[in-house]
Amino acid sequence: PRLTEIPCVINHETEVSCRRDQTEVYVPFSFIHSYFEVYGQVEQKEDGREVFEWSHSYSRVYEPSGVYSPTSTFLNFELYNVEARERVKCISGAEGVPISTQWQSSGYTYPIQIAQFGLSHYCKHLTEEAPQRVVVEDGDQHMGAWQVVGAASRVTRTLDLTTHTNVLRFKAPESPSKGAVVLSLADVTSQSLLVLSLHFLAQGNASFSVTVEFRDKKTEVVTVHYVRSDRLLQVKDRQIYYGLGERSGWSRITRNLLIDVHKAASSTPALRKKFKKVSRSKLRLLSLSLNGSGSIANVTLASAEHLHHFYDAADWLLRHQDQQGGWSIPVPRKVISGVLELGAGWYSAMAQGQAMSLLVRAAHHSGDPRYLRAAARATSLFTINATQGGVRAYFPGNTVWYEEYPTNPSLFVLNGFIYSLLGLYDLKEFSNDESDNSRELFDIGMRSLKTLLPLYDTGWGSLYDLRHFTTHVAPNRARWDYHTTHITQLLLLASLDPDPILSTTALRWKDYMNGHKAKHN
Amino acid sequence: PRLTEIPCVINHETEVSCRRDQTEVYVPFSFIHSYFEVYGQVEQKEDGREVFEWSHSYSRVYEPSGVYSPTSTFLNFELYNVEARERVKCISGAEGVPISTQWQSSGYTYPIQIAQFGLSHYCKHLTEEAPQRVVVEDGDQHMGAWQVVGAASRVTRTLDLTTHTNVLRFKAPESPSKGAVVLSLADVTSQSLLVLSLHFLAQGNASFSVTVEFRDKKTEVVTVHYVRSDRLLQVKDRQIYYGLGERSGWSRITRNLLIDVHKAASSTPALRKKFKKVSRSKLRLLSLSLNGSGSIANVTLASAEHLHHFYDAADWLLRHQDQQGGWSIPVPRKVISGVLELGAGWYSAMAQGQAMSLLVRAAHHSGDPRYLRAAARATSLFTINATQGGVRAYFPGNTVWYEEYPTNPSLFVLNGFIYSLLGLYDLKEFSNDESDNSRELFDIGMRSLKTLLPLYDTGWGSLYDLRHFTTHVAPNRARWDYHTTHITQLLLLASLDPDPILSTTALRWKDYMNGHKAKHN
Ligand SMILES: [Ca+2]
Ligand SMILES: [Ca+2]
Repeated sequence: PRLTEIPCVINHETEVSCRRDQTEVYVPFSFIHSYFEVYGQVEQKEDGREVFEWSHSYSRVYEPSGVYSPTSTFLNFELYNVEARERVKCISGAEGVPISTQWQSSGYTYPIQIAQFGLSHYCKHLTEEAPQRVVVEDGDQHMGAWQVVGAASRVTRTLDLTTHTNVLRFKAPESPSKGAVVLSLADVTSQSLLVLSLHFLAQGNASFSVTVEFRDKKTEVVTVHYVRSDRLLQVKDRQIYYGLGERSGWSRITRNLLIDVHKAASSTPALRKKFKKVSRSKLRLLSLSLNGSGSIANVTLASAEHLHHFYDAADWLLRHQDQQGGWSIPVPRKVISGVLELGAGWYSAMAQGQAMSLLVRAAHHSGDPRYLRAAARATSLFTINATQGGVRAYFPGNTVWYEEYPTNPSLFVLNGFIYSLLGLYDLKEFSNDESDNSRELFDIGMRSLKTLLPLYDTGWGSLYDLRHFTTHVAPNRARWDYHTTHITQLLLLASLDPDPILSTTALRWKDYMNGHKAKHN
Repeated sequence: PRLTEIPCVINHETEVSCRRDQTEVYVPFSFIHSYFEVYGQVEQKEDGREVFEWSHSYSRVYEPSGVYSPTSTFLNFELYNVEARERVKCISGAEGVPISTQWQSSGYTYPIQIAQFGLSHYCKHLTEEAPQRVVVEDGDQHMGAWQVVGAASRVTRTLDLTTHTNVLRFKAPESPSKGAVVLSLADVTSQSLLVLSLHFLAQGNASFSVTVEFRDKKTEVVTVHYVRSDRLLQVKDRQIYYGLGERSGWSRITRNLLIDVHKAASSTPALRKKFKKVSRSKLRLLSLSLNGSGSIANVTLASAEHLHHFYDAADWLLRHQDQQGGWSIPVPRKVISGVLELGAGWYSAMAQGQAMSLLVRAAHHSGDPRYLRAAARATSLFTINATQGGVRAYFPGNTVWYEEYPTNPSLFVLNGFIYSLLGLYDLKEFSNDESDNSRELFDIGMRSLKTLLPLYDTGWGSLYDLRHFTTHVAPNRARWDYHTTHITQLLLLASLDPDPILSTTALRWKDYMNGHKAKHN
């Protein structure tokens, strides 16, 4: 159809070229996209027909799958891939947990991220099909064809007296250039299994390394070394080093080589281009080398080792919980510069809650009472006010809030608060011990949520926090992915509590995602 | 330019036909209008060029003009035309105030409407040019050419001993069909002056009537009778009757014939069509007739008599203020049926405040102390809780609110609250008497406003009230004309109080009217 040009003047401010026919004016979507923040693209349908698909939001809601319990999956965390996130520098060699760069580029351990890492692997463990796994060396049923390179290198299999299993004892030069004990991995399996797991006992500076082939336009080969060092990650040309820290005695080490290569490449300008889009199918493990003196056992290659990562996170929480039962965050956080700031060492109710959710699941899975004790101790900070270094804040009218960011004045972040409630729920449901006050803290928190939830409802979306109420700045609208997080959380809570405010709010907030606003007066 | 058709699928819900070229998809504005609630139309510019004007809101903000004071104009009320509103049944003959049909179709006096009627005429009096006015009969300088119709009719001029002015004494049959004392108005002025004012003293069933010509496609003639009756308004064919109620002694009566004809016509199906779009230029007053026995004086025709209407409203407030200093509303109000309801006889902080603003101006203009005393008495209900029949409510944290609709649970209407604050401001600024607590009530209210104002901010518009917080329904978005009322009110308060929350909120809310939303996280 023939259309003519007509200028469209928007609020007397800007002009955009539109089209018109007799009865209608047509506005370019590129303008609508930026003006209204809606999304659209031409899609080809199966029958070849092209349609323009307009979506009000770019995010989606995850409906609860099955009945929630403290031992079930946690929301939709099976879809999380925490370690792949850009703000994760790498997985530490020393503790097997993600290192965050979100608020400090040098990297630090962020308990929320570590808990989410562990919870995501717990959920993947429950929801994914069983991973492929090949035993490479167990000193007994499966014996690798180890090659001894260099005059001083040796390898033997013995029964270890502390673990009562057969282990592989090795001795080789500490420097790989002078020799090593090497096992080819190229023919171990037809699949590309990229998660290496082994038990490791080092005498002195023992190390192991994996040589990896990356096939893209050009084939590249890198070697990832796991060495006795406190340095997190170092890259020298094609040699990648992860520090294992100080270790005494046997320890289980699980490394996802896809992640280890990907993180090394993205941290290194020279490698970043060559290793653009590192993906599972482009990688192949060529060999495993041992240097120095030590022992290894139970060497496997697998498509995934979710429970290993889960326990790496849970054990990090055990090791790093402090006297107050908390996991303090070692970097400052500037929510609004000069107005809402937290100095290094602050606690987060969300960290406490997510840790509880993880620890309760670890207690369930392992039966080890240390995890449950740690979860119970994590509640102490909920009864200490933010102004006293805790995480408790008050909305006028004595409404208690558990603060993700315990700033002064208060911030009242919604999603972090609900995560803290879920942690309390998991603990109070799982624990038979009434000595912790998780039940009371949860009940108080749920009352607060029902009281304040309407204040996050804007009639067309939700607010991330209540900073506008406490600091008189503009309201902080939740972007769509936080809006869907809110809805996903509310749907979960609605399955636990019949108060209609939870389900009606979730439904209304879902409607907002299709552009259905609340009525005006 | 040549464009092809492409279907646009909106949120997987609806489909609309769009146009596309190589790089752009064009969406019909008719869809955008209904989906996003924005407004647009093709406008012809002075140079003949056509442009499509897109406006985000249909309303506009009135910037404060000049310095606000308790005796100045009141916001932009000079633009109000209260009596012309559809929800005004008519102006009562008995008291000269509007009769509302908003919540009860039979009609009732609504103090907010009466106060706004009075305030609008006060503002028009201050801002409009002096009206045209012709004295028709003052028994002295201006003597009308009265015609005596019927054997029993008579007319004389005498000095009235109570008013010490010359008056016209008349005697004629009570029924106009049997005779009358008649004055032709057709040649009184070249202008069409439609506001009749006179002093009137009736013996028994005296009445007066005005014959009016309405020229449209066809010319119609109606007679408006002002009769001794309690009936508000009655129409019989072309005869319109307004009841003057019981009157003893002299009283001033001012009638806008444009309004009186218009309201009679719209209340009568048979007349409604014929009198579509009654406008000033189409009406002409033909004659004034007197029946029964009585006297008249100071008969004028004018283009406007704003002060008369202003005092009609102020005097209504004096007459109807009750023991509690209030003006109770005689009809029930269902804010949300079955959830938020008020039984007949409720008080409104907005009514009290608007009455105060009017009474303070009447005190200023007249010097009559009764008006200021009434304004001071109007504060009593501000210290009585809504649950006890007053207008005071509390937001959690002991934040006092003055309720336009004192429902239980609370409603927290914003614009009505600010109107109540302006009433308190006018009184505390104008009155030298510290015995009323208007200053304290105003200060408390301003603190509350600064505390709660952010909760009305949605990041893209404002909320009308906080019903979602108290009743868990959807937020009640303010439509654009209430949004601009909020802004106009805040700009006024910002001129009285330097707290930046008032001006920054007003500015941000103005930005929303151009589609500039608050940032998301
Ligand atoms: Ca968060
Ligand atoms: Ca109102």
